[in-house]
Amino acid sequence: MPKQNKLSLIPLGGLGEIGKNMTVVEYKNQIIVIDAGIMFPEEEMLGIDLVIPDITYLVENKEKVLGLILTHGHEDHIGALPYVLPQLNIPIYGSRLTLGLAEAKLQEHGLDRKARLHPVNPGDSVKIGSFKVDFINVNHSIAGVLGLAIHTPVGTIVHTADFKIDHTPVDGEPLDFRKFAELGEKGVLVLLSDSTNVEREGYTVSERVLAEKFEELFHRAEGRLIVATFSSNIHRVQQVVNAAILHNRKVAFVGRSMVNVVSIAKELGYLQIPDGLEVELDMIDRLPANQVAIVTTGSQGEPLSALSRMATGEHRKVAIMPGDTVIISASAIPGNEKLIARTINHLFKKGANVVYESTTGVHVSGHARQEELKLMLNLVKPKFFLPVHGEYRHLVQHANLAQEIGIPSENVFIAENGDVLEFTANTGRVAGRVTAGRVFVDGLGVGDVGSVVLRDRKQLSQDGILIAVITIDRDNGKILAGPDIISRGFVYVREAESLMEEVRGRVKVVLDNCLSQENCDWSMMKGRVRETLSKFLYERTKRRPMILPIIMEV
Amino acid sequence: MPKQNKLSLIPLGGLGEIGKNMTVVEYKNQIIVIDAGIMFPEEEMLGIDLVIPDITYLVENKEKVLGLILTHGHEDHIGALPYVLPQLNIPIYGSRLTLGLAEAKLQEHGLDRKARLHPVNPGDSVKIGSFKVDFINVNHSIAGVLGLAIHTPVGTIVHTADFKIDHTPVDGEPLDFRKFAELGEKGVLVLLSDSTNVEREGYTVSERVLAEKFEELFHRAEGRLIVATFSSNIHRVQQVVNAAILHNRKVAFVGRSMVNVVSIAKELGYLQIPDGLEVELDMIDRLPANQVAIVTTGSQGEPLSALSRMATGEHRKVAIMPGDTVIISASAIPGNEKLIARTINHLFKKGANVVYESTTGVHVSGHARQEELKLMLNLVKPKFFLPVHGEYRHLVQHANLAQEIGIPSENVFIAENGDVLEFTANTGRVAGRVTAGRVFVDGLGVGDVGSVVLRDRKQLSQDGILIAVITIDRDNGKILAGPDIISRGFVYVREAESLMEEVRGRVKVVLDNCLSQENCDWSMMKGRVRETLSKFLYERTKRRPMILPIIMEV
Repeated sequence: MPKQNKLSLIPLGGLGEIGKNMTVVEYKNQIIVIDAGIMFPEEEMLGIDLVIPDITYLVENKEKVLGLILTHGHEDHIGALPYVLPQLNIPIYGSRLTLGLAEAKLQEHGLDRKARLHPVNPGDSVKIGSFKVDFINVNHSIAGVLGLAIHTPVGTIVHTADFKIDHTPVDGEPLDFRKFAELGEKGVLVLLSDSTNVEREGYTVSERVLAEKFEELFHRAEGRLIVATFSSNIHRVQQVVNAAILHNRKVAFVGRSMVNVVSIAKELGYLQIPDGLEVELDMIDRLPANQVAIVTTGSQGEPLSALSRMATGEHRKVAIMPGDTVIISASAIPGNEKLIARTINHLFKKGANVVYESTTGVHVSGHARQEELKLMLNLVKPKFFLPVHGEYRHLVQHANLAQEIGIPSENVFIAENGDVLEFTANTGRVAGRVTAGRVFVDGLGVGDVGSVVLRDRKQLSQDGILIAVITIDRDNGKILAGPDIISRGFVYVREAESLMEEVRGRVKVVLDNCLSQENCDWSMMKGRVRETLSKFLYERTKRRPMILPIIMEV
Repeated sequence: MPKQNKLSLIPLGGLGEIGKNMTVVEYKNQIIVIDAGIMFPEEEMLGIDLVIPDITYLVENKEKVLGLILTHGHEDHIGALPYVLPQLNIPIYGSRLTLGLAEAKLQEHGLDRKARLHPVNPGDSVKIGSFKVDFINVNHSIAGVLGLAIHTPVGTIVHTADFKIDHTPVDGEPLDFRKFAELGEKGVLVLLSDSTNVEREGYTVSERVLAEKFEELFHRAEGRLIVATFSSNIHRVQQVVNAAILHNRKVAFVGRSMVNVVSIAKELGYLQIPDGLEVELDMIDRLPANQVAIVTTGSQGEPLSALSRMATGEHRKVAIMPGDTVIISASAIPGNEKLIARTINHLFKKGANVVYESTTGVHVSGHARQEELKLMLNLVKPKFFLPVHGEYRHLVQHANLAQEIGIPSENVFIAENGDVLEFTANTGRVAGRVTAGRVFVDGLGVGDVGSVVLRDRKQLSQDGILIAVITIDRDNGKILAGPDIISRGFVYVREAESLMEEVRGRVKVVLDNCLSQENCDWSMMKGRVRETLSKFLYERTKRRPMILPIIMEV
């Protein structure tokens, strides 16, 4: 689709968000892909496990695709790897932590042996076809995040990755201002920048401020301390570990992903845990309560997570008891608010003291706010600007910021996934569209659940199903058995026997009428049963179950 | 259940929240009920329309129930009336607005003729049996809210209702400090106070601050102004009307509940709209854009609301156009965050400028924050304290505030719905429990959908249903027709024909095996089909559809 000698940028994938999970950079017959992440299903995507970007465009242009760059190890940036790699066996670039997490994911799918993983460090440059990619240190809520400068024959693209500006980061490595400034000085054609926190004024505070908070909470707590956070937030885990060291507590890690990520991060040197500090979970009951700290998953209230199980008394090894202090060191991902609230209520009922964001600042964001975003725009001074990593409303507001900074509105693009943004050294425009969208993963099925299945699930979920089944003599059209009426999810059948009897009666009348007609065929019969029952049941119950007539011929 | 000569308080109903939708006050053989509200179904209550409190206890003690007091007209305080009144035909007390809204609701259910409605004003006292009830003006996000002082032979109960302290309310009537202070001075046995905003420090600001905000937005807007808010927030609507007057805009009201509430509020004098200001919606297209203001429902992004329809281009009369300014003057009720975000995205895509809470302060809360709650506790100086109107975590924190104020912890009760709190002039304790909980309303069915039906709906919603049906000869046990395999919501059948063929084959084998056995009966046969298919389908798809074997006998 993109023309020769022009540079194209195509955001792919994303549900509400644009250019988050995957972005395509194309020049002549060469493509590099940035990120391969999943999205979490929306509420109405019933039964869907996860959502991946539609990569039809990449598969159709397979021979052009030279490599995949992972900016960082969050699920929405690496989670689709197991679905993408079998279709595009290309080399993958990323920081050691990102690739460590990616490898673990590929291992689960038995794909790790085929993957060609190329670890890079901040400051490195890699040549991929006509592209030269510089990797730039940025701060975020996971370690090992790399912003990108992609030098192309048409000009330089800067991609911030998910970022914030942390002047006192836990690992001592602030965002590489010098590099962004240098790029800006030399001239940047397009900037793609993270829009997540654009609605918030001011600056996001440093991860470091939590050190004091944790110390205070560790100091005050007389019983056990249980800290829930994202397993990927290595720096947060490090800060909890640091507080534990200071207050003579042993640390146990709980939850599958927490245990996995901690082990990878330790191995790769991203997480420092002194010998003897970490204990097995089985050990904690043998230690005095004030010598125990537990770091767990479940900060989003996910029903199957370790913290939720503790809260409801279903965890095999940890039972919440009065005197425990539970710190939920995370904010709600939109949509999880009620699950988190429920977990907090349960924890309080079990007698724990619960410390969470609404009451105490035990979390800081990993995304830049307005002042940081403006700083980035001013450092990079791009000719064209493409806000990404946000829903449409975030992009609009980020675009507004860019205009305040002085980028002319015609040079700012608010794209949708699938839009092809085409650039020359002096021009930029939306040049067309490619196939883009979302593919549903449900169990082993990738893409086999679509709108028809989801519409059925929706109806089934609201009012259930009512089945009317009969056996008819093929030769004389007589009813040999039934109608039998079976329902699920519609009414409590034991208390609705008379209603079911009436339904049976109605079906009988419809069948008899139809069978006595000349032109009666099965499809007409089914149609009439459906129609009659729909109407009857809605009148009687104001519900609309799915109605499924089944005719057996003998 | 409660003993003679003791005063009992029983919070009834509520999902996560305690003592919100209904509270029972009982002394000897006399009961008064405070509020009769609905709850909105949680996500997992599939297909449920609304949830009402279980009033078994009241129905069992019918002859004791003397009256129902409605503190205000929000759905979570009056919405269950149509379900409660037919079971308890008792007099109802409330402000004129509250009763106006209640009456409209009863009318819809054809119950208004039977209802005995007694309007009261702030400052009024009413004797109900041994109780004397004083009605006290408080501020909130709806007009006509009444706090209560219930004088009983054992002592005085003060109930704040949902409240905030607004020193500059739109209707000029601040919360009646003097009355609360006077009650405190004379001695209050128990205080029940609103815990909704207890997690927030400081004070909730006055509704009045929005006047300036609206004026600024009205001043800046060059096109039409569309303001979405709760229809019940009469003062908010009044402020929009005031801004419209100032800026020479006509006002049209959109959305069923907006139109209804505005008409009731106008009639009762709660809302002042000068003649000629209001126009029919059909008229707006004939006016210049800068002379139009539309006040609409849909501030929660409800998919069927007027604003959502405008956002998606499905509204019959209003199409969003570039230049429109849309103000969403509300905050998200927990659980609605994503719906609202989606609406905002759609509005931006249609070219509107959208102003909402995260970007601009266009909403203030109707609930008291910590400083106001402490003020209330200090004014009333109760002997016992029962935090209500909140989830468990809110009650814990409100209890903590009370202890900071100096109420001994043994005099503070964190109750659950159904707990019987028994008081004498000097003692208070949890004395037992009565039946309490939630009853699901689904269409016309009240209480007929329970855990079995919901469990089925859950399974159907996740992976659909697969039906295997056969007709068998009763005499010789031979299969005459089938097995036929039918599925809904499981896979897209056209692309899964071979899977369905395999399923058919598996069923056939199971049936043949079973039929060839001596002891084969239908229930064993169904069991084996279910088991075999469950296992097979999970292996092949990692999905667990409901499996429904149906056997017809001929």
